Amino acid sequence: MTAMVALFVLSFGIVLASVTADPDMLQDVCVADLTSAVKVNGFTCKENFTADDFFFDGLAKPGLTNNTLGSLVTGANVEKIPGLNTLGVSLSRIDYAPGGLNPPHTHPRATEIIFVLEGQLDVGFITTANVLVSKTINKGEIFVFPRGLVHFQKNNGKVPAAVIAAFNSQLPGTQSIAATLFAATPPVPDHVLTKAFQVGTKEVEKIKSRLAPKK
Amino acid sequence: MTAMVALFVLSFGIVLASVTADPDMLQDVCVADLTSAVKVNGFTCKENFTADDFFFDGLAKPGLTNNTLGSLVTGANVEKIPGLNTLGVSLSRIDYAPGGLNPPHTHPRATEIIFVLEGQLDVGFITTANVLVSKTINKGEIFVFPRGLVHFQKNNGKVPAAVIAAFNSQLPGTQSIAATLFAATPPVPDHVLTKAFQVGTKEVEKIKSRLAPKK
Amino acid sequence: MTAMVALFVLSFGIVLASVTADPDMLQDVCVADLTSAVKVNGFTCKENFTADDFFFDGLAKPGLTNNTLGSLVTGANVEKIPGLNTLGVSLSRIDYAPGGLNPPHTHPRATEIIFVLEGQLDVGFITTANVLVSKTINKGEIFVFPRGLVHFQKNNGKVPAAVIAAFNSQLPGTQSIAATLFAATPPVPDHVLTKAFQVGTKEVEKIKSRLAPKK
Amino acid sequence: MTAMVALFVLSFGIVLASVTADPDMLQDVCVADLTSAVKVNGFTCKENFTADDFFFDGLAKPGLTNNTLGSLVTGANVEKIPGLNTLGVSLSRIDYAPGGLNPPHTHPRATEIIFVLEGQLDVGFITTANVLVSKTINKGEIFVFPRGLVHFQKNNGKVPAAVIAAFNSQLPGTQSIAATLFAATPPVPDHVLTKAFQVGTKEVEKIKSRLAPKK
Amino acid sequence: MTAMVALFVLSFGIVLASVTADPDMLQDVCVADLTSAVKVNGFTCKENFTADDFFFDGLAKPGLTNNTLGSLVTGANVEKIPGLNTLGVSLSRIDYAPGGLNPPHTHPRATEIIFVLEGQLDVGFITTANVLVSKTINKGEIFVFPRGLVHFQKNNGKVPAAVIAAFNSQLPGTQSIAATLFAATPPVPDHVLTKAFQVGTKEVEKIKSRLAPKK
Amino acid sequence: MTAMVALFVLSFGIVLASVTADPDMLQDVCVADLTSAVKVNGFTCKENFTADDFFFDGLAKPGLTNNTLGSLVTGANVEKIPGLNTLGVSLSRIDYAPGGLNPPHTHPRATEIIFVLEGQLDVGFITTANVLVSKTINKGEIFVFPRGLVHFQKNNGKVPAAVIAAFNSQLPGTQSIAATLFAATPPVPDHVLTKAFQVGTKEVEKIKSRLAPKK
Repeated sequence: MTAMVALFVLSFGIVLASVTADPDMLQDVCVADLTSAVKVNGFTCKENFTADDFFFDGLAKPGLTNNTLGSLVTGANVEKIPGLNTLGVSLSRIDYAPGGLNPPHTHPRATEIIFVLEGQLDVGFITTANVLVSKTINKGEIFVFPRGLVHFQKNNGKVPAAVIAAFNSQLPGTQSIAATLFAATPPVPDHVLTKAFQVGTKEVEKIKSRLAPKK
Repeated sequence: MTAMVALFVLSFGIVLASVTADPDMLQDVCVADLTSAVKVNGFTCKENFTADDFFFDGLAKPGLTNNTLGSLVTGANVEKIPGLNTLGVSLSRIDYAPGGLNPPHTHPRATEIIFVLEGQLDVGFITTANVLVSKTINKGEIFVFPRGLVHFQKNNGKVPAAVIAAFNSQLPGTQSIAATLFAATPPVPDHVLTKAFQVGTKEVEKIKSRLAPKK
Repeated sequence: MTAMVALFVLSFGIVLASVTADPDMLQDVCVADLTSAVKVNGFTCKENFTADDFFFDGLAKPGLTNNTLGSLVTGANVEKIPGLNTLGVSLSRIDYAPGGLNPPHTHPRATEIIFVLEGQLDVGFITTANVLVSKTINKGEIFVFPRGLVHFQKNNGKVPAAVIAAFNSQLPGTQSIAATLFAATPPVPDHVLTKAFQVGTKEVEKIKSRLAPKK
Repeated sequence: MTAMVALFVLSFGIVLASVTADPDMLQDVCVADLTSAVKVNGFTCKENFTADDFFFDGLAKPGLTNNTLGSLVTGANVEKIPGLNTLGVSLSRIDYAPGGLNPPHTHPRATEIIFVLEGQLDVGFITTANVLVSKTINKGEIFVFPRGLVHFQKNNGKVPAAVIAAFNSQLPGTQSIAATLFAATPPVPDHVLTKAFQVGTKEVEKIKSRLAPKK
Repeated sequence: MTAMVALFVLSFGIVLASVTADPDMLQDVCVADLTSAVKVNGFTCKENFTADDFFFDGLAKPGLTNNTLGSLVTGANVEKIPGLNTLGVSLSRIDYAPGGLNPPHTHPRATEIIFVLEGQLDVGFITTANVLVSKTINKGEIFVFPRGLVHFQKNNGKVPAAVIAAFNSQLPGTQSIAATLFAATPPVPDHVLTKAFQVGTKEVEKIKSRLAPKK
Repeated sequence: MTAMVALFVLSFGIVLASVTADPDMLQDVCVADLTSAVKVNGFTCKENFTADDFFFDGLAKPGLTNNTLGSLVTGANVEKIPGLNTLGVSLSRIDYAPGGLNPPHTHPRATEIIFVLEGQLDVGFITTANVLVSKTINKGEIFVFPRGLVHFQKNNGKVPAAVIAAFNSQLPGTQSIAATLFAATPPVPDHVLTKAFQVGTKEVEKIKSRLAPKK
């Protein structure tokens, strides 16, 4: 309700050119205009905003984990929270069924730091020198995955687990390694994958068929 | 334990100049050497590291809120997690007693995004055009405080509240407004404060005495 | 030869399309189109520009200081000098009557460095460790206020004073602390302010009434 | 030889505090002191330097491609060219035998742009939306691999191929996907890989054995 | 052709809201819309793209060097390769006739690193302490010109020479010193140049006439 | 408790103008340790600092202009004000005799904005498209020179002139064009200069002799 009042004053101010709503405000924030026809690096800014542009309730409930991997990532980035535009930070919630895996992936644009809401996870990242840095973490504990490095989390416990993940990017991006290589469209050629993984076409085709997007 | 193995391999690798531990690793991460005599912007890097440098368990339990303000901020920044050095992100946990306030403050170096772990909070930030943008948020909900702007959270509920806060800085810094002006050492002169707040010396001295650090 | 042709066309264009701005130029500079309907972080760029886009004469005369605080800040930022867009620097002139105060404030996006044009000033900033760093400075002297920290200047002399202030931002923004907390719209709730400053509602209301924008 | 003269003048100048060699120079460049005991993000700077710190001849000859993948990457980064420290750019030469593959990999810290010196290559990158963007390129042609995305090059021709690759990082880092997942030390657990690739332990162990570092 | 398929899938995916083509893609890349009426720092982004936006064949053949200086720079920057927008890197090819000179110039926005394709070059840069750092380099060798500093290359050999130059900017810009001072439009006043170079108007006019753009 | 002790020492120190800041402070500021043996990009940080590290009085008086060019630049950068380290801003004062010239030069690392303290100046910059953007400015007026572009100021008036110049760099660097090309050590070869300026060796040698550093 306070926010609505704020918006009212804001709009009113613009009409009157009063102090409370001068263009300065667009310099404190640049709330994403997600529907603009003009595309820029990030997003263009909306003229007006309310407190709701800085709010999101989509992480309040656990995500559904009844999929092949037994995990689900729910984003709270600039696409959901327009006020994050230009501000360089975002969150995700990740839920894991028992045995669930958030498979090896990278975020091209961010470091990730996770806080365990529930359960226990085996987590790790691999450096460019091919060293695995891993740890078992429990409820309330924190782990860091440095920018750009391949990392994963697995719930080897018997109960569901969940984390809040924070990123220093408004839209960190995710490149899930197995899907990137074996389920891209158009497909990465078999001869690239057989040579990269040193296996035969048969094994490559097997993985491709299993990772193919469900119809 | 895995991390110990990693470290062993790492050291071993250095001796043999093998692939697993070449200097490249210092380029993926620059784990803070918190005890170095050489001070730089951020921290210098340690020679070796383990998974524990990317881990922290200090936010697992609620902080004590039996203080004047009824709130406590517990940091999980580079000073606690050396692996965060150069990575540009950190967390905090904030606990609030019923009626507790995290008083108006700024973070000179970061935007903040909070996720409510427990309870309900009235939160807000003020733009440089002096517009208050505020909202009541509940468990599982998210709110954003743009970089550098004054903001606060208050628990107007009847039960404790808690949030996880994420920042896009390894050490965001906090400047608590009332304490900055009325409890600095040496003190900000009365004549600055009486003129800024348009009150008399008596009122200024009253606030100073109440905000003075406890002996 | 291609280069010669390019240059010819360029010169031709300059003569006829006058002011001087082929598309190459937009890469050296991006002169703000202050009237564009498209809002981005900063400003979109104008097609053409002249030397006047890099010029401003609004700081030549002292600002009027016959107000409550006895000081006036006159900006020379991207809103006044469109050529500053994307260039990351701006100036202000600040005038102070005898006894005048530029009250405690922050610039969320810049460090400030001042050069005293006239008179004498008592200046200071407060660190996040609540240490006041202060000094008396005279005509021709310089002082630095680090990015994001609360700072102030007061003319305790008997004659007017003035400074030129430089910022490493095209639009540094200013958050004046007392007005932010006691004169925002909608107002910051009394219960936040009484708890933050440890005073009663009466004192808070008194400050609010004195800092209220004049009708 | 000219460089030697330059150095002489430089050292001489320092002793005399003359204009030609004042500390300003360290601000134009910060030539890496690769042997310093103090580790920072990047490298500390050497006191003196010569033209050789900005020179490298290690890409003049083709690299040996008689390995499993039929390709070899030779770096010309800050570890080989100390003068690149803080300057944000580097090169590599990549040689490919007929049939040779530079397998799918990421550079956590850089975009890559290649220029084909010899031969023909099939190249591609995959976006985070799992779209393969690919092309066949020939001698003298250029292709771009955006920052952080998985990409590869394969020589499907009958003669050797070679490229010069440029990066906007002094040390872009390389994370070769297959080796990262199947040849890390300590190993990524089988249960992570079987779930990620949806195959059995047998297939995972087979890939691990084939990608294991040669003794 | 592959790219066309990719584009088709992309468009198709958008209609179906499927995973392969969500708006995320614009965050991996922001392919320049070179024809947009909206001008921003860099370029706005196109809605769709193909592999050709990341490809260029304009450096495959030597540039014509039958001009006064005996050299030609051919750019492969964002104006030629729209996919480079926001990615921070670009290439050029420079060809030199025997005796040819790429005259002293600066790149305001980039460091340059060159790889010699053919021939031999005498190259150098001058620091702000006025120290010339120079070297003779041959086919396959590399040299670095730090950001913003004046530098040049001269072919003192008897055969043509050529280099590939890489820059850490999508459009580094070039300010050729002699032309900047003696062939600008409108002209730099003679009294500035006579005083700067400590020569008479006659010498200045002579240089101006020789460097004047050919009609 | 440690914090209380730190604060006490701190207060004591400030009163005595001694030196005493706790490590937290180093995150707000990183005051340059100008004498450290460890060289980094910028400077390492001092353990302790006082208000004097943010103060400078060296621009209070006009610089001596009785030199060949009739102008003098006096810097107020990180080398003079250690507190500017990492803060990204600095000032200079430039004095001009009647007829005095600050000759064409670039700042590789900063945009410059000037405020005229006294007199009148003819100022200009040249874009990479070789367009001169120029203006006559008077006392109290402002002009901007975009980052990296060649620019100059000339006092064509009959009385002395002076400006305060601000830069968005703690040490912007200056490359004075004529001296860079004609007075470097070792010298830029005549054959480079004759070709670049299209004049004979005689003219080049004449300029070199006139610009040679005075013994």
